[in-house]
This record gives sequence, C-alpha cells and structure tokens, in this order.
Amino acid sequence: MHRYALFVNKIPVGVLGASGYAGRELCALIAGHPRLSLAFATANEQRGVTIRVAGHPIGFVATEDAPLGDAELVFSALPHGASKDWMARAQAFGARGVDLSADLRPGNGCEGIAYGLTELNRQVIVGANVVANPGCYPTSILLALAPLIKRRLIADGAAIVANCASGVTGAGNSPKRELLFAEVSDDFRAYGVGNTHRHLKEMRATLESWGANADLIFTPHLLPVARGILSTITVPLTEPLDDTLAPWRDAYGTEPFIELSETPVSLRDVLHRNVVRISATLLEGMRTPTLLITSAIDNLVKGAAGQAVQNANLMLGLDEIAGLPA
Amino acid sequence: MHRYALFVNKIPVGVLGASGYAGRELCALIAGHPRLSLAFATANEQRGVTIRVAGHPIGFVATEDAPLGDAELVFSALPHGASKDWMARAQAFGARGVDLSADLRPGNGCEGIAYGLTELNRQVIVGANVVANPGCYPTSILLALAPLIKRRLIADGAAIVANCASGVTGAGNSPKRELLFAEVSDDFRAYGVGNTHRHLKEMRATLESWGANADLIFTPHLLPVARGILSTITVPLTEPLDDTLAPWRDAYGTEPFIELSETPVSLRDVLHRNVVRISATLLEGMRTPTLLITSAIDNLVKGAAGQAVQNANLMLGLDEIAGLPA
Amino acid sequence: MHRYALFVNKIPVGVLGASGYAGRELCALIAGHPRLSLAFATANEQRGVTIRVAGHPIGFVATEDAPLGDAELVFSALPHGASKDWMARAQAFGARGVDLSADLRPGNGCEGIAYGLTELNRQVIVGANVVANPGCYPTSILLALAPLIKRRLIADGAAIVANCASGVTGAGNSPKRELLFAEVSDDFRAYGVGNTHRHLKEMRATLESWGANADLIFTPHLLPVARGILSTITVPLTEPLDDTLAPWRDAYGTEPFIELSETPVSLRDVLHRNVVRISATLLEGMRTPTLLITSAIDNLVKGAAGQAVQNANLMLGLDEIAGLPA
Amino acid sequence: MHRYALFVNKIPVGVLGASGYAGRELCALIAGHPRLSLAFATANEQRGVTIRVAGHPIGFVATEDAPLGDAELVFSALPHGASKDWMARAQAFGARGVDLSADLRPGNGCEGIAYGLTELNRQVIVGANVVANPGCYPTSILLALAPLIKRRLIADGAAIVANCASGVTGAGNSPKRELLFAEVSDDFRAYGVGNTHRHLKEMRATLESWGANADLIFTPHLLPVARGILSTITVPLTEPLDDTLAPWRDAYGTEPFIELSETPVSLRDVLHRNVVRISATLLEGMRTPTLLITSAIDNLVKGAAGQAVQNANLMLGLDEIAGLPA
Repeated sequence: MHRYALFVNKIPVGVLGASGYAGRELCALIAGHPRLSLAFATANEQRGVTIRVAGHPIGFVATEDAPLGDAELVFSALPHGASKDWMARAQAFGARGVDLSADLRPGNGCEGIAYGLTELNRQVIVGANVVANPGCYPTSILLALAPLIKRRLIADGAAIVANCASGVTGAGNSPKRELLFAEVSDDFRAYGVGNTHRHLKEMRATLESWGANADLIFTPHLLPVARGILSTITVPLTEPLDDTLAPWRDAYGTEPFIELSETPVSLRDVLHRNVVRISATLLEGMRTPTLLITSAIDNLVKGAAGQAVQNANLMLGLDEIAGLPA
Repeated sequence: MHRYALFVNKIPVGVLGASGYAGRELCALIAGHPRLSLAFATANEQRGVTIRVAGHPIGFVATEDAPLGDAELVFSALPHGASKDWMARAQAFGARGVDLSADLRPGNGCEGIAYGLTELNRQVIVGANVVANPGCYPTSILLALAPLIKRRLIADGAAIVANCASGVTGAGNSPKRELLFAEVSDDFRAYGVGNTHRHLKEMRATLESWGANADLIFTPHLLPVARGILSTITVPLTEPLDDTLAPWRDAYGTEPFIELSETPVSLRDVLHRNVVRISATLLEGMRTPTLLITSAIDNLVKGAAGQAVQNANLMLGLDEIAGLPA
Repeated sequence: MHRYALFVNKIPVGVLGASGYAGRELCALIAGHPRLSLAFATANEQRGVTIRVAGHPIGFVATEDAPLGDAELVFSALPHGASKDWMARAQAFGARGVDLSADLRPGNGCEGIAYGLTELNRQVIVGANVVANPGCYPTSILLALAPLIKRRLIADGAAIVANCASGVTGAGNSPKRELLFAEVSDDFRAYGVGNTHRHLKEMRATLESWGANADLIFTPHLLPVARGILSTITVPLTEPLDDTLAPWRDAYGTEPFIELSETPVSLRDVLHRNVVRISATLLEGMRTPTLLITSAIDNLVKGAAGQAVQNANLMLGLDEIAGLPA
Repeated sequence: MHRYALFVNKIPVGVLGASGYAGRELCALIAGHPRLSLAFATANEQRGVTIRVAGHPIGFVATEDAPLGDAELVFSALPHGASKDWMARAQAFGARGVDLSADLRPGNGCEGIAYGLTELNRQVIVGANVVANPGCYPTSILLALAPLIKRRLIADGAAIVANCASGVTGAGNSPKRELLFAEVSDDFRAYGVGNTHRHLKEMRATLESWGANADLIFTPHLLPVARGILSTITVPLTEPLDDTLAPWRDAYGTEPFIELSETPVSLRDVLHRNVVRISATLLEGMRTPTLLITSAIDNLVKGAAGQAVQNANLMLGLDEIAGLPA
C-alpha cells in the first residue's frame, strides 16, 4: 500500500506560523495526510531550524520567504492581526486559504468570508477561496447550540450560559509568566470574565445570523492540562424534550466528526481526535425547562488544525475525512 | 512563648473518621491549635496505625473504641449515613459535636440543627450542642449569594447558574478506579449533572429559608488538582449595580475569613487558608442585568476542616480565628 | 484505499486481559492494524461491557469464555502468575502466543522461551510458538546497554546504575489508594528500592546471557504523569569514547524503532510511539571514563503493547512495522 | 498572645530580589516570623506593585532604592552574578547578609565565605558577616553524604551517583518557553547532563574540603511538579553496614530539621517544611557493598528560603527554629 501511494498525486499546501501549537498540529496532520504534502512551513523565530513533529522532520523558513506560489492552499496560523494580509498575498499567488486566526471570522468586521464551521457550512466552504476557521470555544459551543436554534427550541430572550474550560495550549506558546508550569499547576481560574473574550463577538454574530434571539454568557477558564475544551452550557427551552438528544440526532445524523453521548462527556473522550462530542440532560426542579449540555473537543484538532484540514479537504475536492483521526 | 503555652489549659477534642482527607486536615489543625488538644482520632481501616500529619504523629483507634467521654467536643468526618448516630452517642457522653457529614444538613430531613455557615449563623452556633458543618460546594456558593439575597437583588423567579470545579480530595480517599491518577490527569468532566448532586438539596433548603425565590442550577466538575473549589456563578439582578462589590462589603465588613477581590479569583489565592474569596463583575451586553461571580475556597479548609474548627472555636468560647490560617 | 483494504485477508488475534492499560493499548493497535483483526478481548470484571478505545468499540468476554481457537495468535496481558497457563491453553488450540506478563521472561524460572526484545532476538522470535514480551524497564535499559556489552566496553566488574522513572500506567489500573490522583500528584518517589524490583531478575539473567560481567543497580521511581519511562544510566567504561553514539549507530544502523539523539532524551519525544530513543554523554571529571545514557520509551507502546505487536508481526510473517506508530 | 508579641522587639531584615519563588517564600517566612520584620523587599520589574504572599501584603521597591541601612540583615535572592556586589553594599551599610545566589558558594572563586549548610557549620555561621546559602541540590546531597564521609565509610576512589529530580520552581519564574505548563506537563527530562550543572562545583569543593576521595556524578532532572527535590544516591562503601541508618543517627542526633526514615522518602513527606528527610538501604546482590540513599527537601524551604532563615536565626542570636515549619 505504501508503494501504491507513490502514484497518488499529493497536493502541495503551506503553513504560515507553523511553530505554535496549532501550527505544529497542522504540520503533523499534513505529514500523515494521504493526499496533502507540505510545501513549506514558516516560523520567524525559528527560521532555519528543523524540528520533529510526531516523528516527521519539519524545516522552518521565515514567513517573508514563504514560496506562496508553490502551494495550492495555504493555512495561516499567524497571530491575530497579522494573518489577514498574508491570506490576501497567498490569494494573489493563486493559492486558496484557510485562516486559523480571528481576523476573518464573523464579528471581526470582515463579513462575507466563508465561516468554516464545517458541518454547518459545507456549501459555502466548498467553493470558497478563503475560509475563516472558527475559534476553539465557538466550535464547541456553536455546534452544540445549532440544532436547538434550528428547531426554535430556545426560549425567546433567554440567557444561555456557557462555562468553558480549556487546556493551556489554547493560550499559545509565547513565554508568559502566567503560563509557566509553576503558575498553572494546582490552579484553575476564569479569564475574559464579564463577556469580554474575543470569541464572544464571533459567537454572537453567528447566533444572530442564525436568527437566535438569546443572550449568551461566555466564561472561559484555564485548566491545568495541556489540551482539550469542555463546555458546560445551560439553555432555557420553550418546552421540555422527551428525547433530549433528538435535536442533535436529527441535525447531525451520521456526521463522521460529531459524536452524541448518553452520559456527560469529558476531555479524555476526544483528545487527539477531530470530533466534537455532545451530551444533553434535562435539569431537575426548574420552573423553565432547561437543558444542561456538555460539549468536548480537542482544542488543537477539531478546535483548530483538524477542522482546518477538514475544510481544506472540502475545498480541494478530497474526501472530507482524509487524514483526520476520528 | 512555647513555655508560656504550657500554662494554657487545652480543651480536649476528638475526631471520628480521621484517616480521610478532611479528617487528616482536622487533625493537623488541632495539632497546631493553641487551645485545642487531640483526645483521640479514629479510623477503622487503620486502627493501631500511627501516621504523621504535617509533622505531627497521629495514632488511630477503631471508631467503636473512641473514648467519647474524654472529649469536650467531637468532630465527625465519618461517611454520610454513619455519622448521625455517632453525633448522638457523643452527646450522650456530654460532648458537643460538629458533624462534617451531610447527615444533619438542611434538606436532609433533620431540620432544626444549627447550620454551620459560620459568618451567617453565629448566634445559633454559639449555643448549639451539635452543628452541621456545610458541604464544600454550598460554602463557596451560599456565602457568595447571601448578600444579594439579603438586599433582594436577585430577579424574582430567576435561574442562578453555578458551575463549580473541585480538586479530587473532595471525592475522598477510598480507592476507586475513576480517581486513579492515570484517569484524572489530563481530564476534566462534569458529574452530578442534571441537578442531581447531594449538595443541591442543602443549598435549595437554605436559599428557601432565606426567602429566595430563584431556581438554582448546580453542576460540579472534577479538576485534575488535589484541592480547591472554584465556583463561577451567574445571577440575574433586579437592577444593575454601580459598585459590584458593595453587597459583599456591606454584608461582610471586616470578616476575617472573607476576602473580596477586584479581579476574578483562582484556586491559588486560597489554598491551605480558611477563607472564601469572592469577586463579581457585571456582564456586558445582557438584556437582564446579570452578575458573574467567582468564589474560591480550599475544599479541605474553609470547605470542611477549617470551618469545622471555626465553628468549634465559637461553640467553646474561644477566639473564632484561633488556630486557623487566614 | 479503504475499499482496496477489504481484499486483504486479516489475521485474527485475541487479547486476554484486555481491560488494563496495556490490554487496551493492544486493542487500539490491533483495531488500527492493516493486517490484524480482533477475534476476542477478555476482561473478567468487565465481561459483557463494550468500551471505546481510540474510537473503536471493544466488547469484553470473560477470560474463560475466550474462543482461543478463533485466533492465530493470542496476546496475554493477564496478571503475572495467571498468564502462563493461558499461554499453554492457547497453544493447545493451535494458537501462537505473546505473553506480556513476567511469567515466561528470563530469570523467572522458564528459560528457553524466546525473549521478545525484538531488535536483538529476531531469529528466535520469527519461529517461536510463544514469545515472552519484555518488561517496560528492561526494554529501556537493555536496548541501551546491549551495544556497549557487544563491544566489550563496560569495565569488568563495574557497577551500572540505572535510575528510572515511570508514569503511573505502569502500575496498572487496579484501584489502590497510593495510585489515587490526590496521592500521586505533586509527588515523586522511589519504589522497589534496594534492588528488589521484579524486573531486576529479568535484566540480570539477560545481561548474564550476554556475557556481561557487571553489577546492576536498578531503582524505579513513580512519576506524576500517565505514561512514559525515562532511564538515566551510568556506565563505567574500559576506555573513553571519541564518538559517544558510535556503539549504537553500529549496532542499530537503520532500525525503524530505535532513535539516537545528540541531546538528552525526554518522555515527550517518545509518547504514543513504538520507539526507544537513546542519548549518551561522556561525564566530565571522572577518574574512570564513564558514560551517562538517557533512554526513553512509552511504557505502554515500546514497553508493552507496541513491542508485542512488533513481535507478532515477525511471528506472523508480516512487515515488522505494520500497524505501529514510529 | 498576640498582644504579648507587641512587646517583643522585632529585628528588621530586607529581601533583595523578592519577586522570584525563593524571594516570595522568604517574604512569607519573615511575615510569619515571631522575631523578624520585613524592612523592605525589592523587585525591579514589579517596583511599586504590592502582592499578597500567604495572605500578607508585600510591596516592592526597585533594588537600587533598597534602604539597606534600615535592615540588620539582608537576604539576597538576586540572580547569580548580580548578588555579590549587593552583599558588599549591604555590609557597607552595616547590615549582615545571607546570599541565596551561587556567587559566594564554594567552588565559585570566593573561598573563605561561611557556607550555610547549617547543621554542619554552625560555629562559622554564628559569627559570620555574610553567609553563602547552599544550592538546593547540594543541600539534599551533602547533608545525606556527610555522615558517611565523617565515618570514612565511602570506598576510596569510588563513584557516587546522585540522580536528582526537582520541581520547576527550582528553575525560577522568568518566562521561558521550556518552562510553560504545556511543555513541562507529561514530561520528564534530565538537564545539565554530563556533570555540567553549576551545583557540581559547589559539591565537589565541599566534598574535597571534607577530605572525601570520591568522584561525584550528578544528574538533575525536571519534574512536572511545582516544588520539591528527591535525590537518589548510590554510594559504594568500604564495608557493609548492619544498621544502615546508624551513621545519620550518630551524626544528626536530635537535629530539629533532619528526619530519618526506615522507608524510602518522597516529596510529599517534606513539602512546605524546613527539613531534609533521609533514608538508606543496602543494595542486594552487589560485589561491592553499596548504599542506596533517598533524600528529600522542599527546594524553596530547606533548599532556599527556609535554610536562609535558619542561618539568619543563628547569626542574629535567635532560636534556630524560630519561624520555621518543621
């Protein structure tokens, strides 16, 4: 089978900003992908350095030296703010793009860009030149909420409360004191408190575009683990549900990367896999019928690099699941 | 100063169920207490064994061999269900009692027992023969909510959402597979989902006794840390607050074990100390004015052994802060 | 390529004792293996239960109900003592066996059994009916020492000091208090101190069979991580080495599962991969020239399930690297 | 007792470099010390900031603004290289000094300075103007080896192998990528490999001064825990020991900060306490009688701030155990 693979043409893709956690995960997925090959990987600080990612050697060039024309599709894991221009430059070279930064996401002033919440936007993604890859928290929350909104099950004017906890790779690998092991271990804390986190704009704009009439409270927390996001979400309903998982079964059917669970989900269920795993329970003793949803993803896979490859697969006419651990 | 201490009469107290995490914390606090001495410590499984707790040797006897008559006050950290009878037995010997189990707490069918939420119930606790020491989650949630309820700031019929995360010592030290290091590390998960946790009864009964007309959603989570509880609570208000911390400043003034914080609190702020630390922020962009409260305690100190000693100090006429790390 | 795979005959294999950490890793490797299929998996405690391992459903039967005749090869991850008889039973059904327990390893009274240190024993393993899969510590230590012994570089009568640290999956998943998260986290301790660990017999017998004339001091430690073993080994030499990695380069050449490193190795380098990674440095300021070797494996992969599959691949005439992450 | 304490004159001391882990531990110990008061604490980066350390507010000034004349004794936790000059400046103001940096330790070119391995050097420390506080690793290793050297029990020309593992606070709190939580968690690695760590000079010079004729191999490792050091040491002996702990019992008698243990020691035994805990076992099956010693300290207490206060207590004529958790 290895020899057979030699006859398959691989599509060259590039990665801008490849030395961060999401960038390295991308390189690893591309290295193991049956139909993609890595044309280049950039990392300004580590230009000239070769590292091993999951056993594969990856050599970094400076971003300004990226041979954009060598790639049919360019992934950008550059910092927010810096990414947008590089997406435009890649397009000028004829490459399509998947932007993992927040630059082009809904609520960031760049409406009209395809939003890469794959399961919900396939038609737009397939033909898009540039796709804005969703934030990690929005992926776990929006995929969990969408079926309820579609079925108009959320009480009008309700307050949805999303408490989320993320592993520290979500905060990147720039050296900051508050991310040192001796600071994070044995601790747990909320951040972006008061509805101030960047991802809230993205979620509010998306919920609005779906016609939802609800407030969203979003409080992220920092977990002493390397990876994974768990979202615990309460949703006031218009009516009780007999079959609490029915909305998700109906909406997602046999989606390869969405798993439903009868019991609350946990980080371990999803680590290193490109899935979102969702559970829902009706709360006891409430005057308004209310659902408690738990939703888990690996922030670096379905929450970043995995979903980016899933989108790229669609854009490039490949099997959507190619190269993705499910 | 050591020699001076020899002339102070110490009050003998006993600990039933001393080998668990709360029991050992109690023994350590008593060993370092200027006015209490340990008359006995029981542990059926470890009868005859002597262990070191924070440098102090503690010898265990079987619970049935506890010399109840030797103690002026008996702490029980026995399992739920088994504790109640031992509290009665201790009283028959003339000892007063602080019960750390759930047996005598509000909502458990034993109304009329003094509830040891110290800062809110001093008058009752001082004269009580038996005090029901609050659960760890209720301590962090109820002390945070009380000032809002007193000032009737919570919207009528509102849903309060309390998402809490606890270190694993909260689950005890009986060997269970799901509590093994290899299962808990790198994970994060909700439990007692659907408003089914034992502590919810305790909180609902207490909130009702305070005249609160609100629903409470309570979802605990298991953190990969040894100790500490962080509660993240959303509360819909009747009106916005200009000074978000004012209700707590007014209610708690100079309480030695309550700390208010301008910024969100975290586990590290409170570990090994007998305090609850509270912060509050008004949420942006909500149609109903809503507070986001974070409240942190050390589950073994203010959430168990520390508050038990605080109550015992009151009951025995000692300085309330004696022997307690603040 | 998926469709193509349907035409490949898969070889049925079984797993005895599949619910432990090594057993589950085996099931996951078999589920993802291009040429093996899982005929059965046994777990007495969890008989009748189906769990998901890396996304694959695995159903457990009782060990006594194992359809041994359905498998061409049986892996046993049963407890030490219980495994040996089941290996014999499997052979009676015509199945070959790989025993992951200590029962048949060198130094345990069963000499003559093929010892599955794959890179060093291929000729014997290929034709063996039963292979004793090495212990995790011996894998990391013996593969590191073998090239020095072959070249007679170890000083006669020398004391080799092997300090090793293992993640807690090495201790199994039976619920024991000392393996609880709250006991292991924030701790680090030696065990089997004084040359009393079971694996020492296995190593001494093997070193002797290689003609080594040296004492071995072996001190394992328990790390607060889930998986991985790092061995730090000092070896007094007969003469200094100009090129410290030369003995390993010469001995292992292009071995697919042995990696040499110019810098000290770490757990992260090898997690989830079937490799041993080795580095060596000559120590400064010693009167006897002495090497400091670091050697890392994933205890569940190269230290257990991965090496077992590597051996099975050889025994079954498959590509040695089939189904193994390198 | 609090009121009584008001009449005790407290001795003002200052801390240079107070924002690091050792510096903050020092501030906490001083804040809780019955006879010391904090005259100043410096931290260039955080000048003007007030933090809470174990509940006590500590305000930082720039180091150059330190009122050296206000202190009778100055502790320096400044970086290596910068500390020495400040010790001299403090002396010019009439203050005595305890230097926690490596600048004045044995083997660093400043012989003649009192070496603050308290239990072994009391006579020199009492009258010293400046004391070089030992490194954390040397404290755990040298206190373990001294009794064997005194009794000439170490084989002539022997190689002592010290494998040590430290929590990450030992590496300081400057933001470095390799110390991020996402890099350290789930990992374990050696560093300073090849006898290149700074602490080796300190230990070799000290061993030489004691007349030891042995080589020392020292390999430190980085543990995924916040604090604590475990040293695992093998020592070839001139003769077997019937009573393996006898040398330490004889040497240390009733030392308040040295604990002997019949069983191997672990980090948990010593965290947050100013003790070294030592165990020793004779190794089985060795041609040269060889001891396996385990020695544990809290790197920030007995390995840094605690021992510094212990030395200061001696220098200032206070009770040696004052303010120190044992």
